[in-house]
Amino acid sequence: MAMTDTMPEAAIAELGQRAQRAAAGLAQCAAAEKNRALIEAAAKIRSGAAVILEANAADLERARAGGVGGAMLDRLVLDDARLEAVAGGLEQVAALADPVGRELARWARPNGLDIARVAVPVGVIGVIYESRPNVTADAAALCLKAGNAVILRGGSEAVESNRAIHAAIVSGLESAGVDPDAVQMVPDQDRALVGALLGAHEWVDVIVPRGGRSLVERVQRDARVPVFAHLDGNNHLYWHPSAEPWMATEVIVNAKMRRPGICGALETLLIDRDCIDRLPGLVDALDGLGCEVRGDASARAIDDRIRKATEADWATEYLDAILAVRCVESPDAAMDHIARHGSGHTDGILAADPGVIESFLNRVDSAIVVQNASTQFADGGEFGFGAEIGIATGRLHARGPVGLEQLTTFKYLVRGTGQTRGD
Amino acid sequence: MAMTDTMPEAAIAELGQRAQRAAAGLAQCAAAEKNRALIEAAAKIRSGAAVILEANAADLERARAGGVGGAMLDRLVLDDARLEAVAGGLEQVAALADPVGRELARWARPNGLDIARVAVPVGVIGVIYESRPNVTADAAALCLKAGNAVILRGGSEAVESNRAIHAAIVSGLESAGVDPDAVQMVPDQDRALVGALLGAHEWVDVIVPRGGRSLVERVQRDARVPVFAHLDGNNHLYWHPSAEPWMATEVIVNAKMRRPGICGALETLLIDRDCIDRLPGLVDALDGLGCEVRGDASARAIDDRIRKATEADWATEYLDAILAVRCVESPDAAMDHIARHGSGHTDGILAADPGVIESFLNRVDSAIVVQNASTQFADGGEFGFGAEIGIATGRLHARGPVGLEQLTTFKYLVRGTGQTRGD
Repeated sequence: MAMTDTMPEAAIAELGQRAQRAAAGLAQCAAAEKNRALIEAAAKIRSGAAVILEANAADLERARAGGVGGAMLDRLVLDDARLEAVAGGLEQVAALADPVGRELARWARPNGLDIARVAVPVGVIGVIYESRPNVTADAAALCLKAGNAVILRGGSEAVESNRAIHAAIVSGLESAGVDPDAVQMVPDQDRALVGALLGAHEWVDVIVPRGGRSLVERVQRDARVPVFAHLDGNNHLYWHPSAEPWMATEVIVNAKMRRPGICGALETLLIDRDCIDRLPGLVDALDGLGCEVRGDASARAIDDRIRKATEADWATEYLDAILAVRCVESPDAAMDHIARHGSGHTDGILAADPGVIESFLNRVDSAIVVQNASTQFADGGEFGFGAEIGIATGRLHARGPVGLEQLTTFKYLVRGTGQTRGD
Repeated sequence: MAMTDTMPEAAIAELGQRAQRAAAGLAQCAAAEKNRALIEAAAKIRSGAAVILEANAADLERARAGGVGGAMLDRLVLDDARLEAVAGGLEQVAALADPVGRELARWARPNGLDIARVAVPVGVIGVIYESRPNVTADAAALCLKAGNAVILRGGSEAVESNRAIHAAIVSGLESAGVDPDAVQMVPDQDRALVGALLGAHEWVDVIVPRGGRSLVERVQRDARVPVFAHLDGNNHLYWHPSAEPWMATEVIVNAKMRRPGICGALETLLIDRDCIDRLPGLVDALDGLGCEVRGDASARAIDDRIRKATEADWATEYLDAILAVRCVESPDAAMDHIARHGSGHTDGILAADPGVIESFLNRVDSAIVVQNASTQFADGGEFGFGAEIGIATGRLHARGPVGLEQLTTFKYLVRGTGQTRGD
């Protein structure tokens, strides 16, 4: 009994110790060394394509036998094109600027001390993810580029594919002379190992969950280590009467329908009473795209195609072709609704009045606050970060898209010429 | 039974909800409003001095009756001069630049989106502290200036003094028209309330412990909320043969003896074998100041005033007039010792060789890495931060001195002109 209790911790401690050693080495790697490792890993994925696709076929067979189908199954599938995208992704990360060693600030003190704040890797990052096997490579690449060692734990459904991709990456690291312990994978799918990883504050500096709500919820609940994640993206747009109607309609339709299933998708529209007569034009557009609209009494009084929304709709992240609409009396009422029901992910305003816009940007306390643009821009790539490992709604260190910079921290360098401190 | 279990959580939830409301208001306060509140609070501390000193007398009487004396008792004492320093401290924080609203970065995207990263308050900060009643005012001032609400929990020994200072601050906030819930104090000394505060992740964004090792240890162990703190300051200096001997001696003596009890004090000197003949000159200086020196066999072979160090000495933060000395064969051996025994607080090198210095600054992964200067500069004031709430050795968000900037976080503002995202 005691043995089975301690074994997962011991297994993770062993991985963690090796990861810490690898991280100490990686922190000293020049950008060129890390980039060579990523490029070699891409080459190994291409040259090992047959082995990876065979492993993937085994996962797919098991999934089909287990009754998995549709979108779930599609996410699991690898083919030549998808594998080429995985390899290309590694090369794209290699091409990004190195985030380590950047001088974030530097100043001189009256006593001549020269103080600099310099970016350094975070250390060891745990990534817990589901289904898509490409995450194995994407997450490894971002962590490595930022000088971090990574411990990966993928979902059971993709276990063979993940292992094969991991083996190719490790072989790439070895070709480039980089410590292969920099990218490790939890040895088996025992769920107790996930618990041990979440509790491994001695070895792991941050955990990044990539997957559905229940995974993120579990990680946030059980982790004794900082977590970069978001649970919900219950995102709002407020339509102020000063907004150009065509612009508002275009942005709302894009925010909702470009991809209704991503975390940056719009969920609730707050429309000002003073422009509620513009709602039918929007409903025309949404209707044409197969989007259901649910609204409060004021919205339904204007357009009877709108179904009845209940209190629960304000709290729901549909991730689907459904939009909730609420009529609000003022910008303040819109901001109050967002403070009450929002999840701090991405919220925005459609307006032309500069005073109303600035007050909204100041007061709404979400990771991303948008003015006159689609909430679907909530994405590290769209921000110009090159790539992202996820979006965080926590308040500390990483907030919003988590790119290479957020996978670093900093230290202070104090350069003196013999200074001593007085009383 | 169930009632006593839930009551502390309910009490903290009530404080926390009020603090969150106050924080939302404070985040919108102009710098002038927050500064007025701090200046009014200083005035109330001056005008209420008699009441505060009377409360302090009650604490002192209780402490003496309980057998408290010496330095412990001295820390508790308030008098006119110390109270004036408390009031002056509030005014000094008022005079610092406002950290909220700073544009940390801003860039344009090819599609015309204008993205800015802007500093915003963290939210609600819990401060748990011991003995010195001035922390009540210092912590409240820093949190408030950075736009945060604060929940204070001081030590039992200073409970009356803390309450009186808190009452003066609240009265100052009210005079300035700032929500008095911005600075709250845990209602009584029930230890269960500390546990509830440490677990209150729904209400509290970060906890700052200020006090001895056992307090910090308990907070780090039990908090379900991020913590800004350091447990140890087991700080090192490495004396490389290229260092000017006079400079090395002066810096080492200052690093150890200026104030041996602060967290930035030097604890272990790593001296290179190639300059170990300079050790007796250093021991002369330390000896004259009453500092005990403990060393390994090589150090003792050079100077028989040096007592024998054991393995435990490398791990000990003396916070006292004792210095451990170890002879190392190379810069690598020094850095290995620091990686193994250091606490990631402040470590430094004494050298003139630029290659050796740069390699040390790069490789040593402590919050503060110093070259040719005293480790006692590990202090927010000395860094030019104006004031600090403590020093953090955690890796995320705050590392090193925690000043006003570290008490803020950021959000992204995305300004568009109708942009929608393509496929």
